[in-house]
Amino acid sequence: MNKIEHIGIAVENLKASNGLFKKLLGTAHYKVEEVLSEGVRTSFFQVGPNKIELLEAINDESPIAKFLKKKGEGVHHIAFAVEDIESEMERLKEQGFTLLNDRPKRGADNKLVAFVHPKTANGVLVELCQEAPQMDPLQKG
Amino acid sequence: MNKIEHIGIAVENLKASNGLFKKLLGTAHYKVEEVLSEGVRTSFFQVGPNKIELLEAINDESPIAKFLKKKGEGVHHIAFAVEDIESEMERLKEQGFTLLNDRPKRGADNKLVAFVHPKTANGVLVELCQEAPQMDPLQKG
Repeated sequence: MNKIEHIGIAVENLKASNGLFKKLLGTAHYKVEEVLSEGVRTSFFQVGPNKIELLEAINDESPIAKFLKKKGEGVHHIAFAVEDIESEMERLKEQGFTLLNDRPKRGADNKLVAFVHPKTANGVLVELCQEAPQMDPLQKG
Repeated sequence: MNKIEHIGIAVENLKASNGLFKKLLGTAHYKVEEVLSEGVRTSFFQVGPNKIELLEAINDESPIAKFLKKKGEGVHHIAFAVEDIESEMERLKEQGFTLLNDRPKRGADNKLVAFVHPKTANGVLVELCQEAPQMDPLQKG
């Protein structure tokens, strides 16, 4: 794993937390993005080589809605940057970790992502993320 | 803030978790250090420009013992690297954050550290950390 790509933080109100984290980090978020498949609205802050991702639920079925109900606001996941997500998923399975995804799926911020079950990782929800290959221009539109 | 310096993860058994995180990260911890004032034994893993710090309680009064009892294993704090911890503490106080320390204190890994109260930071225990100045050689021994 190359670095901590980002830390995902569950928040009740993205707009309010964008203001709070601007004060904390001394820099504003550089984008807001919805991931409809996950039921989340996210914002990203750059901190040197790393990012902070804030996550707000956009419906009650969102994993973030369930997390907030159970645990309240706070760190939701840690994402590590990997070069080749499929080989890394294979390596972790061989090491005994349980993955929450059979295949990489598309996440926010142009990433392919997969998650490791927190029960196999000391209570930490670990995300692997790889920069997604550029879409074939012939497939656009 | 320059980068995520490390993520602190509370664990029940440091030795077992050192093995688990070696498998997860693909690299072994590079040191173990006790911080007696905090009642913790810690280990550090390098992940590119960032670190993972595992924290085990060495007595029942340790903040980590209390955290484990209340929440179980998982992410305990996020530490950001800063150049000048005192001016950063001042800046955050002016921005309305509550600090848990009046002055920087000595933490693990040769750092000066201070904490922001999680109640003022969306449930996240935020650590500021600055590389501690080298001790004056005349004061050694």
